[in-house]
Amino acid sequence: MNDVIDFIHTHRDRYVDELKRYLAIPSISALPEHAEDVARCAQWTADELGRVGLENVRLIETPGNPVVCADWLHAGDDVPTILFYGHYDVQPVDPLNEWVTPPFEATVREGEIYARGAADDKGPVFMHVKAVEACLARSGQLPVNIKFVLEGEEEIGSKHLDGFVRDHADELRADVVVISDSPMFDRGVPSICYGLRGLTYFQVDLRGTKTDLHSGSFGGAVANPAFVLTQILSQMKDRGGRIKIPGFYDDVRPLRDEERLEFKKLPFSERQYRHDLGAPKLFGERGYTTLERVWARPTFEVNGLLSGFTGDGAKTVIPAVAMAKVSMRLVPDQDPVAIAEQFESYIKKVAPRTVELTVTQMHMGKPWMTDLDNPFVQAAGRAIEGGFGRPPVFNREGGSIPVVSTFQEMLDLPSVLFGVGLPDQNAHAPNEKLDLTNFHNGIIASAILYGEIGKLRPSSEIGIVS
Amino acid sequence: MNDVIDFIHTHRDRYVDELKRYLAIPSISALPEHAEDVARCAQWTADELGRVGLENVRLIETPGNPVVCADWLHAGDDVPTILFYGHYDVQPVDPLNEWVTPPFEATVREGEIYARGAADDKGPVFMHVKAVEACLARSGQLPVNIKFVLEGEEEIGSKHLDGFVRDHADELRADVVVISDSPMFDRGVPSICYGLRGLTYFQVDLRGTKTDLHSGSFGGAVANPAFVLTQILSQMKDRGGRIKIPGFYDDVRPLRDEERLEFKKLPFSERQYRHDLGAPKLFGERGYTTLERVWARPTFEVNGLLSGFTGDGAKTVIPAVAMAKVSMRLVPDQDPVAIAEQFESYIKKVAPRTVELTVTQMHMGKPWMTDLDNPFVQAAGRAIEGGFGRPPVFNREGGSIPVVSTFQEMLDLPSVLFGVGLPDQNAHAPNEKLDLTNFHNGIIASAILYGEIGKLRPSSEIGIVS
Repeated sequence: MNDVIDFIHTHRDRYVDELKRYLAIPSISALPEHAEDVARCAQWTADELGRVGLENVRLIETPGNPVVCADWLHAGDDVPTILFYGHYDVQPVDPLNEWVTPPFEATVREGEIYARGAADDKGPVFMHVKAVEACLARSGQLPVNIKFVLEGEEEIGSKHLDGFVRDHADELRADVVVISDSPMFDRGVPSICYGLRGLTYFQVDLRGTKTDLHSGSFGGAVANPAFVLTQILSQMKDRGGRIKIPGFYDDVRPLRDEERLEFKKLPFSERQYRHDLGAPKLFGERGYTTLERVWARPTFEVNGLLSGFTGDGAKTVIPAVAMAKVSMRLVPDQDPVAIAEQFESYIKKVAPRTVELTVTQMHMGKPWMTDLDNPFVQAAGRAIEGGFGRPPVFNREGGSIPVVSTFQEMLDLPSVLFGVGLPDQNAHAPNEKLDLTNFHNGIIASAILYGEIGKLRPSSEIGIVS
Repeated sequence: MNDVIDFIHTHRDRYVDELKRYLAIPSISALPEHAEDVARCAQWTADELGRVGLENVRLIETPGNPVVCADWLHAGDDVPTILFYGHYDVQPVDPLNEWVTPPFEATVREGEIYARGAADDKGPVFMHVKAVEACLARSGQLPVNIKFVLEGEEEIGSKHLDGFVRDHADELRADVVVISDSPMFDRGVPSICYGLRGLTYFQVDLRGTKTDLHSGSFGGAVANPAFVLTQILSQMKDRGGRIKIPGFYDDVRPLRDEERLEFKKLPFSERQYRHDLGAPKLFGERGYTTLERVWARPTFEVNGLLSGFTGDGAKTVIPAVAMAKVSMRLVPDQDPVAIAEQFESYIKKVAPRTVELTVTQMHMGKPWMTDLDNPFVQAAGRAIEGGFGRPPVFNREGGSIPVVSTFQEMLDLPSVLFGVGLPDQNAHAPNEKLDLTNFHNGIIASAILYGEIGKLRPSSEIGIVS
């Protein structure tokens, strides 16, 4: 392994130059005018996988953008197989004028590389590819079987991934999924994430009348759907921040005492956090710390409101309709289907008969949590320590990574979230960046991870349940 | 007077032809690309006032569109002077595709003339001009002194009218203002409006954080301004529709028993009204009928809501900001300044400290009510009866006509609201129309009105207080 690490150190500058070329391709999946760039990026990705020595490289067509696949399967049947998942598409770049340097001309400033896709997810993908390259260059082989699955639609909701996984379940058989698409806890605090929140998302539409009405001529005669919307939504939480939907908390798995203790040990300043967000005050459910609220407690949020006149100035209208987007983040063991039913039944109960109510479900994702004792998670911990010089903390995340559930449910695979970005990486925002020391340490950690997982037995033999 | 009425009957078709030419000018004050049309319409209006025999015709410049003025002041000092107010500008026409015939090619269908401006306000203005023409053509004189003031910015808030009235207070001296810019109660039910509601309008802005936040990564840690907005606004009214702002009802003048009785006599079907609006149910303050609620009770309305993500689909964002437009319709003797203070102090009290609250006042207008015994109002009643064959009902209106307060406060003049449009005239909407029988009867009624007011003494001599 030292040979491999030496190789990685020696080629440090080349990796950055190559990554810059990868980041130069504006593979924005959300914008039709970049369709050719997305296709070019898929091809570039495939070519690169072949260049480093991966085999069976192929672009697999979907109804959308192709999935780039490759593998190296010569480590033997008694060695586990890693399924590495990542994506080669990127977010749009607007507002463009807020970028200090152009988003597709990667630029290094103070040890960080700035470009769209640097952190999400080309940098982390490239890190794993370079680790494979180093292993194969030094020893002609890998210590583990590995399959790469790199999709081109992650930034537009991975809409064809479920179908792809279903159609290619055999090809994708593996022992563990490794994903590097989330940040570590903090600079200098490498982490492994063992829990994610789920989600259920709705659009709520109210209609009061056929058309907008003049608020003078008709004000007082009919219910105003914009006002009724405020009445309905305000009944979703009490003043202490607790959600009032009956049964909502029934299946929430309580925080274990050890978790609360571990969270408390993390370097986290509520004051700094509040200052960074620019909030007058932090606020959340009583009886929990901020990290507990974000990682381990469910939420109800209003994501959008629209009704009536919203331009400059004044228009005296009673809106005909009012709309809200609302969503709930869920924690183990809440079931999104059951929660959705509870929500729909409660909102129908609190809505007055003066308006027509329509509730449309938009999204749903299960919460996820892995066992910290899982040997793959432990192996990842050793790899992180090898690459970053200190053992990772184990944290949870407030967000959702739907693909984790996809692999768990369709392939029965556990996931290891092996993130190297930083919380201020500006994914989805201007000036996205990746710390180059983390990138370099991440290549080393990936190489070590392949070795550590190579020392394990396939899950079928040791009875791991995801 | 019979001579004049004969003249009006004889020229019925010509009036419609001329009105069509007036309606062909797209004098849309809101759209800069129609600035030349607005100027052309001002000139056309002035030329027409001169053609019918009015004197001292002039376009008076303002910082915006000119005011067209003319007068005829030879009836003598012992006869009152009418100030006729109207406007020559019109609303925009979009959505254009909903017009059955082009908005600036006036078309007669089933006794109604369809065009932008037919009812609001070119038709009613033209009606008064043609009544002057008939009087002068038949007898060479008018029974009353009259001043025409026709502005070109009514549809954009009459923003230079206050300044114009202040600067020309001497020229505008009169005994009564006549305004024909509101509909009658119903087809076949001519009416005179004796009360209007006032208004106070606000924008409410909340800020939670510096930027929008990811609802996964941050959900639970901070107050969501969109949700807080629903909490704040929902506290403005109770479930019975009563406004909870402390002191809000203190100065509301109770409905007199006779008024309630008169309202009850009006031909009004709550069922038909509900059906026309397409509302699942009517709803308003307990203890009042629909007409009472709309005409004589104050309201609190949400006119607009905007926050976060409002496009198609789902975006998991905690909005940084949330905005509402809210307004209150006021009734005598509520004072908009006092109500604004009550509202601002209440909203500041109910807003939590987790968000930054900004309240911006946008508009303000006093409620208005005239005395039914006022001799000018009584004269207008006789004129309506002469023109339409039945006495008018006396009603109130839920809306506000700010110019009524302008004339009352700046010139101490009472107003007579002499409307001939119908409630379904589609002012501000596609397929605006004016009933031609009402137009014709309105010309006769206007001519009679000049005669009836000519029989009175100037208000200075009879001590009328507006």
